[in-house]
Amino acid sequence: MDEFALIDRFFANRGPVRADVRLGIGDDAAITRVDAGSELVIATDTLVEGTHFLPGTVPRSLGYRCLAVNLSDLAAMGAEPLWCTLSLTLPDGAADWVGSFAEGFMELAERFEIALIGGDTVRGPLAMTVTVHGRVDPGCAIRRAGAGAGDGIFVTGTFGAAAAGLASLRSGDAGAGSVARFLYPSPRIDAGRSLVGIASAMIDVSDGLHVDLARLLAASGLGATLAIETLPLPATAEPGRAVELALTGGDDYELCFTVPADRSEALELTACDWDCAVTRLGETHAESGLAWTAAGKTYPLPATGFRHFGADVP
Amino acid sequence: MDEFALIDRFFANRGPVRADVRLGIGDDAAITRVDAGSELVIATDTLVEGTHFLPGTVPRSLGYRCLAVNLSDLAAMGAEPLWCTLSLTLPDGAADWVGSFAEGFMELAERFEIALIGGDTVRGPLAMTVTVHGRVDPGCAIRRAGAGAGDGIFVTGTFGAAAAGLASLRSGDAGAGSVARFLYPSPRIDAGRSLVGIASAMIDVSDGLHVDLARLLAASGLGATLAIETLPLPATAEPGRAVELALTGGDDYELCFTVPADRSEALELTACDWDCAVTRLGETHAESGLAWTAAGKTYPLPATGFRHFGADVP
Repeated sequence: MDEFALIDRFFANRGPVRADVRLGIGDDAAITRVDAGSELVIATDTLVEGTHFLPGTVPRSLGYRCLAVNLSDLAAMGAEPLWCTLSLTLPDGAADWVGSFAEGFMELAERFEIALIGGDTVRGPLAMTVTVHGRVDPGCAIRRAGAGAGDGIFVTGTFGAAAAGLASLRSGDAGAGSVARFLYPSPRIDAGRSLVGIASAMIDVSDGLHVDLARLLAASGLGATLAIETLPLPATAEPGRAVELALTGGDDYELCFTVPADRSEALELTACDWDCAVTRLGETHAESGLAWTAAGKTYPLPATGFRHFGADVP
Repeated sequence: MDEFALIDRFFANRGPVRADVRLGIGDDAAITRVDAGSELVIATDTLVEGTHFLPGTVPRSLGYRCLAVNLSDLAAMGAEPLWCTLSLTLPDGAADWVGSFAEGFMELAERFEIALIGGDTVRGPLAMTVTVHGRVDPGCAIRRAGAGAGDGIFVTGTFGAAAAGLASLRSGDAGAGSVARFLYPSPRIDAGRSLVGIASAMIDVSDGLHVDLARLLAASGLGATLAIETLPLPATAEPGRAVELALTGGDDYELCFTVPADRSEALELTACDWDCAVTRLGETHAESGLAWTAAGKTYPLPATGFRHFGADVP
């Protein structure tokens, strides 16, 4: 058995055991059961060294983060996590590295009771692809399209800390408080699930609040004009760059969603149980386009938001 | 919209349309429906340049092959293909390259009516990860474990042509007849599905017949002693190396399976409809281990079979 087969065994029999998994790692494929009256929600995301994370990033963060960014997609649909697969491409099979990577991955898998049911470990430039599966009641998944004119626009948490953390890592300051927000984002699974039947549209914010909210509005055929004074900024934000980082920084993995006026009370009730803040940014309008104001005047945005693949990280 | 977003659009609205896909590419996740009375079969495989294929490989083959190797895993479980996701890591977003890649991918997707429901396109060293989903009736998936002592051992097709094709490619002879067997393997979906209720255990042969049959036997707690004279070799095989390539060459993506004696007739009946040969290699025995004979004497194998990640391809 070679080093990569050993790594596969390292991941087998780890993490949550679920009754709906009939066969996990070790055969040509996994076998799962789906309850009648469920729809499956499926998402996949890849992280590549030099594009999505800096060379030398601690392996525990990579293991955690490659699952977190995928769970965030499930959160944005209002789905309950079920199972995932992991494809890990490694330059070599260093056992220590893989041990820490698996620790980060399994920490998050345990928290959200998502079973690792299969995968692949191959040699090549460092990268990881995770595919996640979740469930919703039929017709209950929350899409980007679905917002109505006049719906309130809300976000979870704060914006800009992950981008500030990445900037600190780039400049060699791994001790900055915001670094953890980049390395260990919190997928908003509980908030997302509790928004089923309340939110009319939802997206997770991975590429920056401006770009992702604009996507939601475009999918719903709407627009909005919002005041930057409403943006929830991290307590530690640098005043000079806070708004720019919040709007275009990326990697926050918060939720952005719309709620019709007659469900505002339901939102208030359910948000009491969340472990994160919820902030109302304003409301949608029928005219398309997303604009921002500062002290009532148009706030000019940089031409483009954050794009992972627009430029390499380092 | 940047080049990678354009590529994503290139894959959207392509390939088979399925009634069980409620939402495909374009949101945070896809939404699918699963019939009551189904179990899902899920597999994932990654191909990396320099490890699984030579630099400069024609993109149509890469698109075809990254789906084919995954469909082969579904075939080995006896599953019916449903949906897949594709994560494509590209050094740049060359439109011509992506067009040919998508052509190869969609050709196979159409043939097996598997819907592309989501994915990710990112910048980085050339690689592709596909995750496939299939269905079986509850409890009907064919695993590696399950063979009984005395069951017949069978294979589809012939062995060794893919490895011969790879060797030709390496030596610059892209015109050799066997090259197509490496570039465009045929996943044995129809044969695999028709073996439900007939085969007691099954595996697809990706790493060489010896290694993969040994895995099936080990999972079933059995062994076998087989004569190399029974091996189905390609008509064009080089006599000197044919047996070694057949046993250890890899990349054949044929099926290897066991059938209890009382289902041999059922196998004969169903195999009439296949578009590939079926060959009986011998039978399992209770003692563990897989050995080969030539003219009745022990046939010595090379120490290890083909391992993608044991050595780089070039």
